[in-house]
Amino acid sequence: MAETIRGKGVISGIAVGKVMLAGQNLDGYLAAYKPGSVAEEQSKAEAALVAVTETLLATIERLRKEEQAEQAAILEAHRMMVQDPMMAENIKAKIDASGSAPQGILDAANEQAQLFEQMEDEYFAARAIDLRDVGKRIAKYVLGVKEPEIGAGQVILCGEEIEPSVVAGMPTEQIAGVILGSGSATSHVVIIAKARAIPTVLGIGDKINLIQDGDELILDGSRGDIIIRPTETERALYQGKIEEQKKLAAHYAALKDLPAVTKDGVRIELTANIGTHMDVDNALTYGAEGVGLFRSEFVFMGSTTIPSEEDQFKAYRAAVEKCGGHICVIRTMDIGGDKPLPYLNIDPEENPFLGYRALRISLDRHDLFLPQIKAILRAGLYGKAAMMVPMVISVSEIQRVLKLVEQAKVELAHEGKEYSDDVQIGIMVETPAAAVVSPLLSQYVDFFSIGTNDLIQYTLAVDRGNAQIANLYNPFNPAVLRLIQRTIQSARERGIWAGMCGEMASDPYAAVILLGMGITELSMSAPSIPRVKEMIRSVTSTQAKELLADVMKMEHGVEIRAYLHKMLEGSDASTGI
Amino acid sequence: MAETIRGKGVISGIAVGKVMLAGQNLDGYLAAYKPGSVAEEQSKAEAALVAVTETLLATIERLRKEEQAEQAAILEAHRMMVQDPMMAENIKAKIDASGSAPQGILDAANEQAQLFEQMEDEYFAARAIDLRDVGKRIAKYVLGVKEPEIGAGQVILCGEEIEPSVVAGMPTEQIAGVILGSGSATSHVVIIAKARAIPTVLGIGDKINLIQDGDELILDGSRGDIIIRPTETERALYQGKIEEQKKLAAHYAALKDLPAVTKDGVRIELTANIGTHMDVDNALTYGAEGVGLFRSEFVFMGSTTIPSEEDQFKAYRAAVEKCGGHICVIRTMDIGGDKPLPYLNIDPEENPFLGYRALRISLDRHDLFLPQIKAILRAGLYGKAAMMVPMVISVSEIQRVLKLVEQAKVELAHEGKEYSDDVQIGIMVETPAAAVVSPLLSQYVDFFSIGTNDLIQYTLAVDRGNAQIANLYNPFNPAVLRLIQRTIQSARERGIWAGMCGEMASDPYAAVILLGMGITELSMSAPSIPRVKEMIRSVTSTQAKELLADVMKMEHGVEIRAYLHKMLEGSDASTGI
Repeated sequence: MAETIRGKGVISGIAVGKVMLAGQNLDGYLAAYKPGSVAEEQSKAEAALVAVTETLLATIERLRKEEQAEQAAILEAHRMMVQDPMMAENIKAKIDASGSAPQGILDAANEQAQLFEQMEDEYFAARAIDLRDVGKRIAKYVLGVKEPEIGAGQVILCGEEIEPSVVAGMPTEQIAGVILGSGSATSHVVIIAKARAIPTVLGIGDKINLIQDGDELILDGSRGDIIIRPTETERALYQGKIEEQKKLAAHYAALKDLPAVTKDGVRIELTANIGTHMDVDNALTYGAEGVGLFRSEFVFMGSTTIPSEEDQFKAYRAAVEKCGGHICVIRTMDIGGDKPLPYLNIDPEENPFLGYRALRISLDRHDLFLPQIKAILRAGLYGKAAMMVPMVISVSEIQRVLKLVEQAKVELAHEGKEYSDDVQIGIMVETPAAAVVSPLLSQYVDFFSIGTNDLIQYTLAVDRGNAQIANLYNPFNPAVLRLIQRTIQSARERGIWAGMCGEMASDPYAAVILLGMGITELSMSAPSIPRVKEMIRSVTSTQAKELLADVMKMEHGVEIRAYLHKMLEGSDASTGI
Repeated sequence: MAETIRGKGVISGIAVGKVMLAGQNLDGYLAAYKPGSVAEEQSKAEAALVAVTETLLATIERLRKEEQAEQAAILEAHRMMVQDPMMAENIKAKIDASGSAPQGILDAANEQAQLFEQMEDEYFAARAIDLRDVGKRIAKYVLGVKEPEIGAGQVILCGEEIEPSVVAGMPTEQIAGVILGSGSATSHVVIIAKARAIPTVLGIGDKINLIQDGDELILDGSRGDIIIRPTETERALYQGKIEEQKKLAAHYAALKDLPAVTKDGVRIELTANIGTHMDVDNALTYGAEGVGLFRSEFVFMGSTTIPSEEDQFKAYRAAVEKCGGHICVIRTMDIGGDKPLPYLNIDPEENPFLGYRALRISLDRHDLFLPQIKAILRAGLYGKAAMMVPMVISVSEIQRVLKLVEQAKVELAHEGKEYSDDVQIGIMVETPAAAVVSPLLSQYVDFFSIGTNDLIQYTLAVDRGNAQIANLYNPFNPAVLRLIQRTIQSARERGIWAGMCGEMASDPYAAVILLGMGITELSMSAPSIPRVKEMIRSVTSTQAKELLADVMKMEHGVEIRAYLHKMLEGSDASTGI
């Protein structure tokens, strides 16, 4: 009999297939393993490190050829972990302690993983999973464990956590869906699945035990539903949905080169949020008109010391060049006490979201900030670069930034390095303070980009990672809408442009309201672009303004969302994959 | 030669006297102690618990007679700890383990203290100090250690941490000043010192080692300066300042019964922030016109289960009665994951300030909220009670509160209990959201009280407890001023009253600006009242409006403060104690 479990759908789409349980348990292999002398174990581990590095390099090479930039980047991070001399040293010490190569390898990786596990930031929790993944991978090599064979048909991968390398190592066409017991929407395996548009459901908790290897499943990534051993009727129903889905995908693909323009001719730029320059190609395939948010912290996290101006320049230049004539907005370092950059030496904080982070650090640490500014100014020569500073709360901060930009230019000139004088300087409006004083801030910058994730958190005093109050985190809360509107208005009055780079930008309903407010750019994860574009192409700017006027009279966030749904559901875009 | 140390002045005033080192170390006594049989040790501990309880009861009795309500309340909390059956049980177990009564007592108290020590909230850190204090006190009894003798002259108490009971146990006239190595402005010893207006400096860190028992000291609680072994010239200089100070105190005392009214007749209510009903008497001696913030969480924290409606009613009624014809604003429970109420069962959170707290809990837990509402409605019969809910971010929350108030009335009527129909219902405006949607919220409530401590934190995304970004926490930040102004305007447009109960209310400069915005009530710690009153009496409302108009044109918080200082320093109030 069919049984339905509901989880959190994070990547939409419908999948039908057989379950393959992933996240393999090594306990049995470890128990059966007979270690040799310590010296022998040490050389086995060394050989494993070399072999795994080679396999990773080969897979990365293949993924790059297939233009799977995001997946390649993740495996590249794995490779760095495998080749990290500290990892080798730790493994050595752990083998000395345990006398077993695979155990020592797992111990070393898990010890490092633990350092990251307690971080509040989902990104770093993902890093912990990567480390455990890497440890398993190396240990498996020593243990002689083969990865599970893939059958002819498509599979739905299912695991409490799934190692990103398992997904990245399988051909796209063989993975129909992904199910995670725990997992967060920003974990690496989800990032890979998103890049491949694999329907994914997570957070089903203990109910994962209901799913067995080889089970027939239907997975609905939009609703978060998992139907175990479906009936014929259910199969037929979902088969129909899959057909619709394919049509929609083809429809979206046809939108790729069309502009995001309303029926009455108002144009919006749809850009992509990226983590590394390798993501740009992928973003362009979805029709992104450049990059609205390049998270430069990835450059900082991939390094054990402050990355040099030269290294940063290379990374930024690559992204700027790939954007061609389109804009590439580089956000300066957005890292703080909640994130483990050992070379920053920041103490742990009781409320890291209200702490020493981002611009607050950059303005204190010119050794950190100046090379970044210089790298961005230099990258500006290769396209349309813009620099954006996060976490602004006052005019004096932006005045100090502008002074440092001037200083950077003087230094560059002195050093005989060429740079662009046309790099736009803007701020992320992500604190209530910045939104409130946006009429003052607008005098000093070239653009605003509204960072809704943080803006909502601070305005509503709600940590969006806190499950107990998740229901309070609502982008349509009237206070949030008013702060966004104020920001856009301030920009328009001053004649600078206003965009958005928070998650809200990828919500088609929100896009209409933002359009009504006069926003001119929306930056989002690339696969969201077609749906938002379609929505924009389905309305007129007058309609958007009327809807905006209506919702600004309403008192409740839920009411607003429901109203927009009602008013816009007729439009093509709301059929949504 | 004189040496000057600078700490953080938390209670102003100048003190001259000899140092008495407090926070006595028991290590030597413990090493010399010869325990008897376990049974003997157990009975020594039991006897000590009884004896210490009796001493505490006597001191509490004396303090109450002297109308030292706050100090009595703190010792009352100590007494509860001493009489806590769990404490007795723990002590028993620890003596079984260590074989020594004093060691067992200290172990038990310290173990409990550790549970509180890691809390981010200063209030609960203070509770840990109390627990250690209580442990020491009982252990001292067993060890036969006498409290240090107080000489004829005044002393300046100095210690890394000082046990509140040491200060509370000494006659007011013998303590000239207090110095804490660590310590926070909200620790219990500081609360006691504040009630007695004892000049206090804290946070001098390691430099405390420069101060020795018996040293001559001058302590300037306004500047935070400590002059060790002062020269004759320095003595004479500060003696002059002390004379001025006395004159000013007399001057303020004369203000007690005068209204807080501007030269052109605009009246402001100056009320007090209190923690227990016992604080009301003390507040009235400073000229408080009622209570603008009764922190009901003290009622919740003094209990091991949800306090009953009856217990709450008694506490609220006592406060309301003492306020006489003046208002008594009772804030409903403001507790969350960052605070240890075991009976709430809330998990620790990564960003407790952005977490599950205050109204968010109350609205989920009717078993908690309804008895509180009922107790407040019943207390309303005995004076002018008002109910205020914290952490509002939306209209729907206040609508749900109003429904619960109706339900409470129905239940009370059904139970045959009398209650007042005139209890005003208001909200704390302490999130950016509440300030932004204040025009919507104002339709549903009788008043707003602006909670600046949190409002500033969220608006600026700055945890005010985080030393690394302390410079960013500025009440005069233009964004903060705009949100406050918007809130007051919304109230005025709707014809409801707007007050303030954050620390900003006790700043005389801020008071003038707030007056210019049209605020009608300021609630603060009672000793701040005279200074604010004097400032209000020294200006006209027209001046206040002009100053407001000027500062709203400025871009920097620091600039605004400096300007107000310049414009208002001529007035009497700015001479400041």
